[in-house]
Amino acid sequence: MTTNNTLEQVLAALDSARAETEASLIEWLRIPSISAQPAHAADCRSAAGWLLKELEAIGFAARLRETPGHPVVIASHPGTGGDAPRVLIYGHYDVQPPEPLALWTSPPFEPVVTEGPRGPRLVARGAVDDKGQVLTWLAALRAWHKVAGGPPLPVTVLVEGEEEIGSANLDAVLAEEKAALSADLALISDTNMWAPGVPALTVSLRGMAYVQIDLKLGDRDLHSGLFGGSAGNVLNLLTRILGELHDEEGRIRIPNFYDGVIEPGGNERAAWDALGFDEAAFLGAQGLSVPGGERGRSAPERLWARPTADINGIWGGYMGEGSKTVIACEGHAKLSCRLVPGQDPARIVEGIREFVQSRLPADAKLELQVFGLAPGVSIPTDSLVVQAAAAVLEEEFGRKAVLAGGGGSIPVVSSLKGILGLDSLLMGFGLDDDQVHSPNEKFELACLHAGSRSHARLMARLAAPKG
Amino acid sequence: MTTNNTLEQVLAALDSARAETEASLIEWLRIPSISAQPAHAADCRSAAGWLLKELEAIGFAARLRETPGHPVVIASHPGTGGDAPRVLIYGHYDVQPPEPLALWTSPPFEPVVTEGPRGPRLVARGAVDDKGQVLTWLAALRAWHKVAGGPPLPVTVLVEGEEEIGSANLDAVLAEEKAALSADLALISDTNMWAPGVPALTVSLRGMAYVQIDLKLGDRDLHSGLFGGSAGNVLNLLTRILGELHDEEGRIRIPNFYDGVIEPGGNERAAWDALGFDEAAFLGAQGLSVPGGERGRSAPERLWARPTADINGIWGGYMGEGSKTVIACEGHAKLSCRLVPGQDPARIVEGIREFVQSRLPADAKLELQVFGLAPGVSIPTDSLVVQAAAAVLEEEFGRKAVLAGGGGSIPVVSSLKGILGLDSLLMGFGLDDDQVHSPNEKFELACLHAGSRSHARLMARLAAPKG
Repeated sequence: MTTNNTLEQVLAALDSARAETEASLIEWLRIPSISAQPAHAADCRSAAGWLLKELEAIGFAARLRETPGHPVVIASHPGTGGDAPRVLIYGHYDVQPPEPLALWTSPPFEPVVTEGPRGPRLVARGAVDDKGQVLTWLAALRAWHKVAGGPPLPVTVLVEGEEEIGSANLDAVLAEEKAALSADLALISDTNMWAPGVPALTVSLRGMAYVQIDLKLGDRDLHSGLFGGSAGNVLNLLTRILGELHDEEGRIRIPNFYDGVIEPGGNERAAWDALGFDEAAFLGAQGLSVPGGERGRSAPERLWARPTADINGIWGGYMGEGSKTVIACEGHAKLSCRLVPGQDPARIVEGIREFVQSRLPADAKLELQVFGLAPGVSIPTDSLVVQAAAAVLEEEFGRKAVLAGGGGSIPVVSSLKGILGLDSLLMGFGLDDDQVHSPNEKFELACLHAGSRSHARLMARLAAPKG
Repeated sequence: MTTNNTLEQVLAALDSARAETEASLIEWLRIPSISAQPAHAADCRSAAGWLLKELEAIGFAARLRETPGHPVVIASHPGTGGDAPRVLIYGHYDVQPPEPLALWTSPPFEPVVTEGPRGPRLVARGAVDDKGQVLTWLAALRAWHKVAGGPPLPVTVLVEGEEEIGSANLDAVLAEEKAALSADLALISDTNMWAPGVPALTVSLRGMAYVQIDLKLGDRDLHSGLFGGSAGNVLNLLTRILGELHDEEGRIRIPNFYDGVIEPGGNERAAWDALGFDEAAFLGAQGLSVPGGERGRSAPERLWARPTADINGIWGGYMGEGSKTVIACEGHAKLSCRLVPGQDPARIVEGIREFVQSRLPADAKLELQVFGLAPGVSIPTDSLVVQAAAAVLEEEFGRKAVLAGGGGSIPVVSSLKGILGLDSLLMGFGLDDDQVHSPNEKFELACLHAGSRSHARLMARLAAPKG
């Protein structure tokens, strides 16, 4: 049985183990588990193996579940309590590519602790997304193991290695491992706090449709003097097409793009307005001042409840030093749309295809590669679990948790619901300035430890909700 | 005195020396004299030195004239005739960068002779632009030296090493070497024939304004989920701006762009129509079918008498394998405009700057690098020299030479006129499918040898116009 006294001991154990928790995370961060780059496949496997070993050390039955890509860590512990709900904790051990390397102040896979304005932070690729956040519940499980022999409720762990590249193999694993992954709710730590010291639960997520547009016009590169004015130019074409993606109001012109998008109600808008989101500060911290997105909509609405179209990369022609008077024959762009509940990712991709194809001259060739599809997700805020988590965060941080929308996508949330019937709780401890997906990604040590304590509290609360 | 018999002997000597001419060109082509890439500065100097040696071997007083960049070869020969006009022959020993290397069927600086549909051709970077064309007059000079002890008229040679990068140092050389470069006309071999077996004189040239647009928006790359819908996206911005360069009629929207452009008269249009330019075949050879440029204008007009705006390269964001959900903070594009007589290149650059700047949000930063400026040029077709060259070409090829406009730019033509007071004769032996500035650049051996014979004839004709 879990008592308040047990929880206090667990929290004390966490506090005593801070240095070990940090050292453990640093060790894991050294492994360059970059899922997008085949050259790092062995590193991905090592990162999975590291977690496997750590879970076995605290009494979990753990295994590496093979896939056509990177393996998945599946582990479980019966817990020490009696009749308690089983929680399935999801995370990912893979990380984003670190490029551009030249902009890192320290090597991306040689973690360092540096002093920031709010205290020490750990700088490395994966520091927060997602290894640091995984450590927040792993540290809690270690403390529960040390104090009570195990967690107060049954726990299953599911940590994959392809989240950053679209989790192509995950749905099959979920379907084939239904028995092993059976649980009462899912817990995911891959989102942000509202602000330093202000916790949040993420209650909606945007989806994703990510494509690469490959255009070819002509058999070879041409001399722009000999052919300019007669030959089509694929880069003129590509920029004209992409330049038409948005109208002057910031509305996206992809056919059927807004089909199914649900307008937020007055309550939601009022709740968002009450947050006092300071967009000027949010953008100012990044050296920006002019908001993008659709005119006439508030910042929370544009970040959480409206879809987007962002060019993530573009290239073609001569990119070297100086000048080359060439009309290239190939141009490429990576384009991704964040989606909201109601939009169908596959229809969005077809809309993109139609948008581009209808603007091509007869002699241009289009190839579209699809790198990721996930629908938007909305989580009911009146559920018992959300209420329990909100209470836990208020206890730990001394202030109410914000029920926030998330701008990013966590496609597994839809998969967990669709395949395993699980609702997810999104309780994360990142900060907006952590520079995820950028050089110099960091995780504040205060967030690591407050997150660990929050997870320890949550396990007690979920195991004995009435206690 | 030059007699018809002497010219016949010179032509015979050229024919006997074919293998040596080819071997000589191959030797020169091995030197990777890429002016745009500082790593090849020593190779540029070697290429200059090679030519110096070859000219000294046939009686020229030759020197390397230093500049802040690559050196210029200046050489002269008094000729064997009496009162004959002095011709200044211009060429360049530098070549375009060979990238993309993967598309070459043989290494760009390991010349090979391959069999083409019309006979053998030499494949290498610089094979036609410009080393092969330089060899057409160098071979003629060698034959004149062998048969008659020297050319029949005084010849000065001016071969620079920065043509492909905008000839930034050439004007100063021309101004400072006026005495050494004094002549009666200039001869340049860097243009094309009308078709295989059909010679041409180029009587107009387009100018050039080449810039690089560097846009910065924000201090760092951002996560597209956390920031999409609020943060500006520099690649969305860059494509939107570049996408507005042309209207639906193909007309360029740069402010003041068409100021000073002279509409061709009825005569010119009639002459162009009479050429029977087959645009479908011209484009079809490159795997294209839909003409670019301004609607309602003929192909010769669009290629020779209308200005253009071509994006030569574009890059920014994530360009690697797979996906990265990033909003980049930097985007770049290389943009060049071919200009026609009447347009002021410096005003065009200011127009481009205004075009971009006026479309930027307040937090975006623009830098514009200027890589080349040259006005368009028009050469009077009724001059004695043009008539003489037309006659020479008709003799060599057995058919009338076409008086054609050139689509490309040869900025030195304006400099030779403005600084040395020289008119230029543009007689070249390239072909439209030589793939200049592309992988697998080639020069047909038939063109090399017919060009050499044409230059030999021209020297005789210019030395004794009444004979």
